[in-house]
Amino acid sequence: MSQPPPLPPVSVLGLGMMGGALAAALLRAGHPVTVWNRSAAKTGPLVAQGATPAGTVTDAVAASPLVIVCFTTNDDVTEALAGVDLTGRTLVNLTNGTPAQARDLAARAGKQGAAYIDGGIMAVPQMIATPAAYILYSGDERAYETHRPTLAALGGTRWTGTDPGRAALHDLSLLTGMYGMVIGVAQAFALIRTENVTATEFAEPLHAWVSAMLSGLIPEMATAVDSGQHLTDVSSLGINQAAFRNFLTTYDDQGVSPELFVPFQKLLDRSVEEGHAADGLSRLADLLKK
Amino acid sequence: MSQPPPLPPVSVLGLGMMGGALAAALLRAGHPVTVWNRSAAKTGPLVAQGATPAGTVTDAVAASPLVIVCFTTNDDVTEALAGVDLTGRTLVNLTNGTPAQARDLAARAGKQGAAYIDGGIMAVPQMIATPAAYILYSGDERAYETHRPTLAALGGTRWTGTDPGRAALHDLSLLTGMYGMVIGVAQAFALIRTENVTATEFAEPLHAWVSAMLSGLIPEMATAVDSGQHLTDVSSLGINQAAFRNFLTTYDDQGVSPELFVPFQKLLDRSVEEGHAADGLSRLADLLKK
Ligand SMILES: NC(=O)c1ccc[n+]([C@@H]2O[C@H](COP(=O)([O-])OP(=O)(O)OC[C@H]3O[C@@H](n4cnc5c(N)ncnc54)[C@H](OP(=O)(O)O)[C@@H]3O)[C@@H](O)[C@H]2O)c1
Ligand SMILES: NC(=O)c1ccc[n+]([C@@H]2O[C@H](COP(=O)([O-])OP(=O)(O)OC[C@H]3O[C@@H](n4cnc5c(N)ncnc54)[C@H](OP(=O)(O)O)[C@@H]3O)[C@@H](O)[C@H]2O)c1
Repeated sequence: MSQPPPLPPVSVLGLGMMGGALAAALLRAGHPVTVWNRSAAKTGPLVAQGATPAGTVTDAVAASPLVIVCFTTNDDVTEALAGVDLTGRTLVNLTNGTPAQARDLAARAGKQGAAYIDGGIMAVPQMIATPAAYILYSGDERAYETHRPTLAALGGTRWTGTDPGRAALHDLSLLTGMYGMVIGVAQAFALIRTENVTATEFAEPLHAWVSAMLSGLIPEMATAVDSGQHLTDVSSLGINQAAFRNFLTTYDDQGVSPELFVPFQKLLDRSVEEGHAADGLSRLADLLKK
Repeated sequence: MSQPPPLPPVSVLGLGMMGGALAAALLRAGHPVTVWNRSAAKTGPLVAQGATPAGTVTDAVAASPLVIVCFTTNDDVTEALAGVDLTGRTLVNLTNGTPAQARDLAARAGKQGAAYIDGGIMAVPQMIATPAAYILYSGDERAYETHRPTLAALGGTRWTGTDPGRAALHDLSLLTGMYGMVIGVAQAFALIRTENVTATEFAEPLHAWVSAMLSGLIPEMATAVDSGQHLTDVSSLGINQAAFRNFLTTYDDQGVSPELFVPFQKLLDRSVEEGHAADGLSRLADLLKK
């Protein structure tokens, strides 16, 4: 009986919360993994799990045809890879960034001899390699097809297109939805805790309410946004504008900063001034386009 | 065989999208319903469903011991009920308002001879009388117990306390969570539509992602907020602050107004300046308390 063929080697640059989770998932899947981190201390736990430490970025890049990078920002990526020979490598950059940065890095990587794939991680580190995690990819499609089986060890793989900026656009759009939710949840907890209600007892009703509204609002808004038909019989901008004043007043009365919601009131006011009082909240997506 | 006892009569003042749904639900449940609306045209459809129209607020109030009001704002309620004899009535005010307004209306209603219950409707009109709808109540507990069987025709009943402002506080806190979600979803649709992606094709991944994040974030944040332990190994304020710059840049690059998210970047910046870079997003709820 023959041994199964060995899995391809991978190098991981950046072992922060996310990079560490990526390297660990590749090790668990059976890949030989070479790791590099700016501050050497973070390599320890990965080496204990079987990774090979590299002393320099150049050594790490030389170790594997597939190089995954996950730093804080794309400026860090540009800086760390400047002047490094990437001939014949595929660079998969999973650092959060803008579409423009991804296009710039793709051009630089090309000049240094690498195929470039940009990625947007739709997961927190704890979700990596679970069925809930997926990563959006865009850029060099041939390199993507070659390395897709390896990348699948990190979570679901979703191809968004050959424009290297495409994954970032999808990623930022999805995360924008999440950050709005963060704004709402943080403010809701701040407000309810001004009376003797704990965040824990409020968590269940808050979750139930926001998810129920989310399930209704997203498809309704999508249909309205695509068709341009914003008239509603559910909840008009006029009624939301009138009601929202109560929110700002109450934040103030209860000693909670209204800072995160002041621009929302202004946008509601503008929507009514511009004649959209009878439209639904979907109109706001249009008004945000400059 | 004896007839079942007749259900108690109810008067509904205000037949907008929500008041109309409330009156219709009471009619369907079998209550005699008297209706009044400032502009008489809106009584038509309810009268067709069996309601009795009242010519004035005073007539409507005289018709039933239970009077439900649902106007645009509480100023409208104060105005419409000024000088009306409410002796022996229970006034259930389902107009969206602040805790302070509810306390003020309770005091006024008391002087005019009524028991006062304030309510916060956790539903859109289409959900009224479905299992998904519920209404938060606070104020006169005896009157609430008396009329609870009638109020149950509108949706679930949730008592929040004898402070008349309590239902409004819960209501505004829940709706705050929802409005944050609206901010996120509107901005996400505005952003994705700057490339050739429709809102409809983006709706499913957006919904899946935001609900997954919501399920994780709410209980995590609640625990952190109640315990004051904000340190995280999931996603720190430092990494969020660095990543969020990419969002504002991309909104700008793609021609989407950043107005709704500028204060969020400022709050992230402040959280890091004040030494909370290693904490999770839960710290924001604390920073919002003035
Ligand atoms: N955490 C999440 O939930 C999550 C989710 C999706 C996407 N992401 C994205 O993943 C990326 C990493 O996030 P993280 O949570 O792992 O952050 P983190 O824990 O702060 O780690 C940042 C990593 O970047 C390295 N780094 C920073 N500047 C560098 C430079 N100039 N040269 C070389 N290395 C540098 C750090 O090295 P040192 O150890 O030497 O500082 C560290 O390994 C970010 O772009 C983030 O937006 C994170
Ligand atoms: N729609 C929702 O999804 C929803 C959800 C939860 C809570 N609510 C709350 O329910 C309340 C009503 O909302 P809605 O959607 O039904 O609004 P709407 O369709 O705009 O109806 C507003 C109603 O208030 C009446 N009104 C306004 N000013 C008045 C005044 N000064 N005197 C007498 N009547 C006056 C209007 O009478 P005319 O017909 O004469 O203008 C109309 O009947 C609001 O406080 C809202 O925040 C609504």
